[in-house]
Amino acid sequence: MPAPLTVSFTASHTGPWAIDRMATVVGEGLPGAERLDVREGAGVAAVAGAAWNLHGVTSHLRYTHKNEASALVAVQEGLGRAGATCAALIPIRKSEAWWSLAQDDRRAIMEEQSRHIAVGMEFLPAVARRLHHCRDLGGPFDFLTWFEYAPADADRFEALVQALRRSPEWAYVDREVDIRLSRAG
Amino acid sequence: MPAPLTVSFTASHTGPWAIDRMATVVGEGLPGAERLDVREGAGVAAVAGAAWNLHGVTSHLRYTHKNEASALVAVQEGLGRAGATCAALIPIRKSEAWWSLAQDDRRAIMEEQSRHIAVGMEFLPAVARRLHHCRDLGGPFDFLTWFEYAPADADRFEALVQALRRSPEWAYVDREVDIRLSRAG
Repeated sequence: MPAPLTVSFTASHTGPWAIDRMATVVGEGLPGAERLDVREGAGVAAVAGAAWNLHGVTSHLRYTHKNEASALVAVQEGLGRAGATCAALIPIRKSEAWWSLAQDDRRAIMEEQSRHIAVGMEFLPAVARRLHHCRDLGGPFDFLTWFEYAPADADRFEALVQALRRSPEWAYVDREVDIRLSRAG
Repeated sequence: MPAPLTVSFTASHTGPWAIDRMATVVGEGLPGAERLDVREGAGVAAVAGAAWNLHGVTSHLRYTHKNEASALVAVQEGLGRAGATCAALIPIRKSEAWWSLAQDDRRAIMEEQSRHIAVGMEFLPAVARRLHHCRDLGGPFDFLTWFEYAPADADRFEALVQALRRSPEWAYVDREVDIRLSRAG
């Protein structure tokens, strides 16, 4: 468990990732752009001329229990795999109703009712992902999740996203943008 | 549950709170200063000429269960009470061993073993407090807790602090500074 790492996602006309499509799922969208740059440890400074610029920090596990964490570690793979030329960045914000809940209520909705951790595990190791927290940073979203997968796993990734969006947990999501990207293999 | 509020604690030669004493409990200390200013919503910019400057954000409950949250709301009082002319600012950092634990393990150490929430509740409403998170902000501490109490409750506050320091949870605290303050009544 390393110290929190600040990660910046900057949409403009440069960057290794081509933005193939952007969909506003709920709430306000984000301006369109051609390319995305992902920078680690660059701080939260704004980038001049960017269409948008989102920051988050990797952090400790907020809901995952020990048995789940062990299972995740055993099967998940890291970012940057050579064949994983598809990516998704999905910024979400949750409602005040969510944040007003106590920890046990949030955990119950997230896992016992929505099986968020268990569902995600079904798609490992095909879909690698990293969660970035940003609610405490004061940005417009609460979480930025980054996913990487091979083109052959695109249908599986779609199934994962749809399963989560159908869950009781997602009733608390009041802003969501779905950004799909690709890079040269 | 309002949105996260950024709070800055600035030690220098000005501010409404007189710093009466500063003790380094474990790890590295902080430079001495005469006065403390507490500003809400001021952002995380550095303050020129300050001895030190710490920022944190109020946030949602990370461990508190619903029954505990209800009990807290019923009995706790807010900051800024006229008679609460004593204050303490206690910045702490927890070890990597703590942050590597899963959520259920951290909750078990904090409450089932250390009774952190229950112990704190015994000192309500005499001791009002506000927790500020700062691990995700990249500062030198993980939490800044601010306490306010009347001079007549100073012994009770001391008992609260000592009870927490004796708990199993505190074995994971690797930096702690205890700053005691007062203001004109």
